[in-house]
Amino acid sequence: MSKPYVLGIDIGGTNTVFGIVDARGVVLASSSIKTLKHTDFNAYLDELYTEVHRLLEANDAVDKILGIGIGAPNANYYTGMIEECVNLPWPMPLPLAKMVSEKFGVPVAITNDANAAALGEMTYGAARGLRDFIMITLGTGVGSGIVINGQLVYGHDGFAGELGHTIMRRNNGRLCGCGRTGCLEAYCSATGVARTAREFLEIRDEPSLLRDIPIDSITSKDVYDAAVKGDKLAKEIFEYTGNMLGEAFADFTVFSSPEAIILFGGLAKSGDLLLRPLRESMEKHMMPVFRGKVKVILSELKEADAAVLGASALGWEAGKANAAPNPVAVPAAQQIKE
Amino acid sequence: MSKPYVLGIDIGGTNTVFGIVDARGVVLASSSIKTLKHTDFNAYLDELYTEVHRLLEANDAVDKILGIGIGAPNANYYTGMIEECVNLPWPMPLPLAKMVSEKFGVPVAITNDANAAALGEMTYGAARGLRDFIMITLGTGVGSGIVINGQLVYGHDGFAGELGHTIMRRNNGRLCGCGRTGCLEAYCSATGVARTAREFLEIRDEPSLLRDIPIDSITSKDVYDAAVKGDKLAKEIFEYTGNMLGEAFADFTVFSSPEAIILFGGLAKSGDLLLRPLRESMEKHMMPVFRGKVKVILSELKEADAAVLGASALGWEAGKANAAPNPVAVPAAQQIKE
Repeated sequence: MSKPYVLGIDIGGTNTVFGIVDARGVVLASSSIKTLKHTDFNAYLDELYTEVHRLLEANDAVDKILGIGIGAPNANYYTGMIEECVNLPWPMPLPLAKMVSEKFGVPVAITNDANAAALGEMTYGAARGLRDFIMITLGTGVGSGIVINGQLVYGHDGFAGELGHTIMRRNNGRLCGCGRTGCLEAYCSATGVARTAREFLEIRDEPSLLRDIPIDSITSKDVYDAAVKGDKLAKEIFEYTGNMLGEAFADFTVFSSPEAIILFGGLAKSGDLLLRPLRESMEKHMMPVFRGKVKVILSELKEADAAVLGASALGWEAGKANAAPNPVAVPAAQQIKE
Repeated sequence: MSKPYVLGIDIGGTNTVFGIVDARGVVLASSSIKTLKHTDFNAYLDELYTEVHRLLEANDAVDKILGIGIGAPNANYYTGMIEECVNLPWPMPLPLAKMVSEKFGVPVAITNDANAAALGEMTYGAARGLRDFIMITLGTGVGSGIVINGQLVYGHDGFAGELGHTIMRRNNGRLCGCGRTGCLEAYCSATGVARTAREFLEIRDEPSLLRDIPIDSITSKDVYDAAVKGDKLAKEIFEYTGNMLGEAFADFTVFSSPEAIILFGGLAKSGDLLLRPLRESMEKHMMPVFRGKVKVILSELKEADAAVLGASALGWEAGKANAAPNPVAVPAAQQIKE
C-alpha cells in the first residue's frame, strides 16, 4: 500500500495533539501545538501544517497519508463544520474539514471527540468486532458515541449521541451546562462527582476525609483518593454515581440493545469503586429481556494515545471514501447534506 | 418483473391478517384467519397456506410472490424465531420464519409489529425518504421501531427498540407489564391513559363526565369522548399524557437525533388534544441544539391496511436478499447470528 498511514488530529481547548498512525493502531510519532495561540485560524493552520510536516519528514511518511481524521468539540461529520464552540478561539462557523483538506491536499473527515473515541475503540480497541456498542466518556462532561450495525450514529443533523444530556432527575434536578436541569452529565461527570461530594458533605454530619479539603476545591480525584483510603462517605459518592449510571445504561439498552457499553475517561479508572455499583444497578434496573446481556467494559486504548487514535480512525474512512466513493464514508468536506 | 408482489402477514393475538401488496403499497386483496383456532402450529400453518393460496389464485398472483414479511409479537428478525409469547397458543420457541418459508417455498423475514410499522411507514408512508426517524405506536402498549441511516435498529440480539420501557418516573412509578415500575408504557398507552383517568378521578373532587362511567371500565376512548365534549378533567388527562410523551421524545432525540417521530395507533388519532401538549412539552424539554428540528407527525397508512403493509415491507427485503445476498437483508430463517 503506497499510503499506509493516517493522521489523527485531536483539537482540544488547550492543546492540539496529532500523530501518524498505521493500520494496526500503532502511533508512529506524535506531537502537539497550542490551540489557543492563534485567534486567526489561518495562522493556526499554518503552524499545524509546519509541525505536521516536520513529523512526517522525521518519520519518512511524507506522501504516505491516506486520510486525516479530526476530533474537535461540536465538529459535525456531515457538514465538516464547527458551527459554534465557546472553547475554541476562532470565528465561527468554521469550515474545518474543507480548510484542512485544502491545506494538506488529503481527504479529511471530522467529528466530535466522543464519536472519535468510539471509532478508535472499534478500529483498534475493546470494540473490535462489535457491531452494536455505546462508548461513554466520563470526563469533565459525559460524552457518548453510539455504534449501531457497525456504523457511528450521527442522526439526521450530525448531532446524535448526546447521552450525557439524558434527563435522570425530572424534579429538582441539578442545573446542567446545556441550560436544562437533571441531565446525567450534571451527576456522573468528574464535575458531577465533585458536586455530589459537596451535597453529601453539606447535608450530612458524619466524619469524612473530604472535610479536610476546602469544600469548593474538592475534585473527583479527591473523592477517589478518600474512597481508596476507606472513607465511607467517599465510597457512598461512588455508589450514588454508579447507581445513576446503571439506571441510565438500562434505559440506553431499550433503545439500541448494545452488546457492550465501553467506558473511557478519568472516572472510568476508578475501578470497582464505580464499576461494582454501576453493574449491579444496571442489572437491577434492566428490562428483563436484556438482563445479563450487556457487558460494561473499559477502553483498551492507552489514555495518552486515545484521542489521536480515535481521530485517526476517521482518517481511514475519509481516505477509503476518496478511493471508492460510498455515501456513508464520503469525506465530510465533500459531502452534501441530504 | 416476474414476481411483482409480496405477501404481508400480521399475526395478532386474535386474528392473522394477510394481504398481497404491490411495489407502490397497494393492497390488492387481503383476508384473515383466527390465530387462536389451532394450538398445533402445523394445523394453523396448513389453514394459513390454504387461505393464502385461495387469495393468490383469485388475484392471479400464484408464483408472483417475491417474499413474505411477517409481523408478530416478540418475533426476532435475526433468529427468525419467537422465543416466547403469552398471547400466542403455540409451543415456544417457534422457528416461525423457517417453517413458513418451507411451507410456501418463498423467502421469509419476520419482526415485531412496531418494527414492521416503521418499515411500512418508510416504504409506503409518512417516512418515505427519511433516513432517521422513530415510529411510536400508541396502542394497548407503547411500541417503537427505530430507523437510523435508513436501517431498522435491531440491536445485537434483535430486541432493540423497546422505547415504551424507558423509565419516566424513577420514584413511586406505576407497575408495568414488564415487571418494573415507571415505564412510559404504564402512562402513555391506551391502558395508561385509562389508569391516569382513574388516578385523577380518585384524587380530585371536581365534576367530570367520566364520573358517569363505572371507574374500572373507563377506557381511553371514554376519555377522548369526554375531552371532545369539553370536559376539563378529560382534557387535563391528555395534557398529562402529551407532556410525558414530549419529555420522552426529548430524551430519544439526544440518542439518535431523528428527523421525525411518527405516531401510529388509537391514541394518535386524538388530534390536537394530544399533539398540542406533546409538541409543546417536547420543545420545552429539548436540549437546545435540537430545538425546532424534530417533526412529530402522524402515520400516513390507512389503519385497516397498516399491519399488512408493515409486514409486507419486510417481504421486499427478504425477496431482494434472496436475489442478491446482502448481510443486512438475508432472510431471517437463513441468517446465522454473529
